[in-house]
Amino acid sequence: MGCDFVELAVSGVRSLSPYLPGKPIEELAREQGLDEADIVKLASNENPLGPAPSSLASIKRQLSDIARYPDGNLFNLRQALSQKLQVLPEQITFGNGSNDVLVLLAQSWLKPGVSAVFSEYAFVVYPIAVKAAGAESIVVPARNWGHDLEAMADAVREDTRMIFLANPNNPTGTAFSRDELVCFLDKVRNDIIVVLDEAYFEYVQDEKHPDGIALLNQYPNLVVTRTFSKAYGLAGSRVGYSVSSKNIASVLNKLRQPFNVNNLGEAAAVAVLEDEDYLARSRSLNSEGLEKVATGLQDQGFAYIPSKGNFITFDTGGDAMVVYQKLLEKGVIVRPVANYGMLRHLRVSIGLPEENDRFLQALAEVKEAVI
Amino acid sequence: MGCDFVELAVSGVRSLSPYLPGKPIEELAREQGLDEADIVKLASNENPLGPAPSSLASIKRQLSDIARYPDGNLFNLRQALSQKLQVLPEQITFGNGSNDVLVLLAQSWLKPGVSAVFSEYAFVVYPIAVKAAGAESIVVPARNWGHDLEAMADAVREDTRMIFLANPNNPTGTAFSRDELVCFLDKVRNDIIVVLDEAYFEYVQDEKHPDGIALLNQYPNLVVTRTFSKAYGLAGSRVGYSVSSKNIASVLNKLRQPFNVNNLGEAAAVAVLEDEDYLARSRSLNSEGLEKVATGLQDQGFAYIPSKGNFITFDTGGDAMVVYQKLLEKGVIVRPVANYGMLRHLRVSIGLPEENDRFLQALAEVKEAVI
Repeated sequence: MGCDFVELAVSGVRSLSPYLPGKPIEELAREQGLDEADIVKLASNENPLGPAPSSLASIKRQLSDIARYPDGNLFNLRQALSQKLQVLPEQITFGNGSNDVLVLLAQSWLKPGVSAVFSEYAFVVYPIAVKAAGAESIVVPARNWGHDLEAMADAVREDTRMIFLANPNNPTGTAFSRDELVCFLDKVRNDIIVVLDEAYFEYVQDEKHPDGIALLNQYPNLVVTRTFSKAYGLAGSRVGYSVSSKNIASVLNKLRQPFNVNNLGEAAAVAVLEDEDYLARSRSLNSEGLEKVATGLQDQGFAYIPSKGNFITFDTGGDAMVVYQKLLEKGVIVRPVANYGMLRHLRVSIGLPEENDRFLQALAEVKEAVI
Repeated sequence: MGCDFVELAVSGVRSLSPYLPGKPIEELAREQGLDEADIVKLASNENPLGPAPSSLASIKRQLSDIARYPDGNLFNLRQALSQKLQVLPEQITFGNGSNDVLVLLAQSWLKPGVSAVFSEYAFVVYPIAVKAAGAESIVVPARNWGHDLEAMADAVREDTRMIFLANPNNPTGTAFSRDELVCFLDKVRNDIIVVLDEAYFEYVQDEKHPDGIALLNQYPNLVVTRTFSKAYGLAGSRVGYSVSSKNIASVLNKLRQPFNVNNLGEAAAVAVLEDEDYLARSRSLNSEGLEKVATGLQDQGFAYIPSKGNFITFDTGGDAMVVYQKLLEKGVIVRPVANYGMLRHLRVSIGLPEENDRFLQALAEVKEAVI
């Protein structure tokens, strides 16, 4: 007989609940005996346009190279991002998605005996990363489903080393303005790292919305994370990054696994970064779809949380899991948010026009039957 | 002025020295103004055949899917590996290369106040992972450049939680037999996790060499790690895995980032796993090349460490960095191993026949000029 290695694991790790991803199309097809082509997945805030043709062309050019290790420094992507964002190459840290960078941040500055602050309903990777590092989470109650920045500033303790902000926030779609952010940053001690997660930044069309990178010079304790998984259409390629002071980046780069970004992912990201047309199409498709879905939900009598992202979270009026299951049976995958303590809500990603219609139609039928 | 966030970082992280990868071809081309086609890279133990046609075909079929997140459970690859290795699907943990799994192991069971044992000259990721977790490294002197398993068993302390073994070992190419391994495992306390790194397993042609996976039922504290980066030709795709008891895997899967393997990597791995022809060609090319390079080194009067892997490490007879630089100028990239405390040695990967010749020719010229 062997030992129980769960009992022997580091305490923060032992008590982790793994991340619950959106259900893959293939999995639902297997489970329900459905044809994959008949399934609509609006569960993971992916870009419904599919990958940019520029990304695909770039991948094809690099295919013969996949027996080689990636360039651990990501020279090409680093140069491209550095020019586009007008930051120094040394300010950038790459990750296997921005998830990886968030984990690196927690591992680098958190440990047992210190704490990190984030909002209720904020992205679930923050509590996972904090717990894995053995630190304590301070969860600040939300205001109108969004971050209550004043309360978050007040919640900081002497042992606080990190604050996570999401703007817009997933899964609620809420956002705060530049003025609110600056007011918050001015209040926070300068030895606390403020992680500003801008995974959905590219979707926001609001001139009062802050560009975190523009604030880095003023706030050396700020770290901005972004991703190629959303508006850039590369969720499957796993490329994310942070921009920060060189000082902070130097620590992250010590801990970062040298090949955490694969070489086809780098090639795809370099190409789409210059593809203004794809980004413009992604944004306009999303803003039209967001309006369409919001109107449809309203017409059906569902309350929803106004969203700045590429998804919208609505109140089913009852047990969300019942509605989720019924939608699955109709081949429509959305995302439960019960793990956020939101038992009545579901999150639906904005899809292609026909996918949005399919969702609204399925929801209407389910409402008829269940609610 | 900001704080010094290097000073504020967790102590294990603060003192890390990042992994030093082999120099990429593109980088040398930029630095030396050489044509990429004229450069021979024998620095990272990559498969010189390039990727398997089966992998490329599989990637092409999945290309339109890269805007979707990967399947976090890796259903397809898990099924394929489970059948091939005759283990349960729940015994497998996937990583962004086996590097990722090694780091997950350290993070899950190591912490300040405990220790891990590994050999002098063992793969450099072990001390990095141990230090990042804040634990103490116990480095056991090598015997004939290889693991001294008896001394390693004796070096175990009460606070030891993990032992790393590499078989064959990188960068020395040494290996131990099944009998030696079993004798070691019988001596080790059963609450200590023994990580058996078999990154180069597929290259070994020796019937006394152990298959770690065949020992898992007998030793529930054993974890075997393998990779698609070497004989399977997918270093750039970042797919590695461990096989262990379900108990151990359940902990690793809590900590594992849900999308640590990208979807094209999974597709490529599934295809090459069934490609017996590619694996056979990789192995025979390697055994012929290994003999050729060993003979060439001997003819030039260089002592080398007999290797079971796809690389060979030899004594330059002087300052290895001088020889390394001179080889770079001739467009041949090999790997310094000074970070292993091997100041006179260089490691050269086995390449295509013409690449091996190019290396031996360049080395002869450098020897003439320098040594």
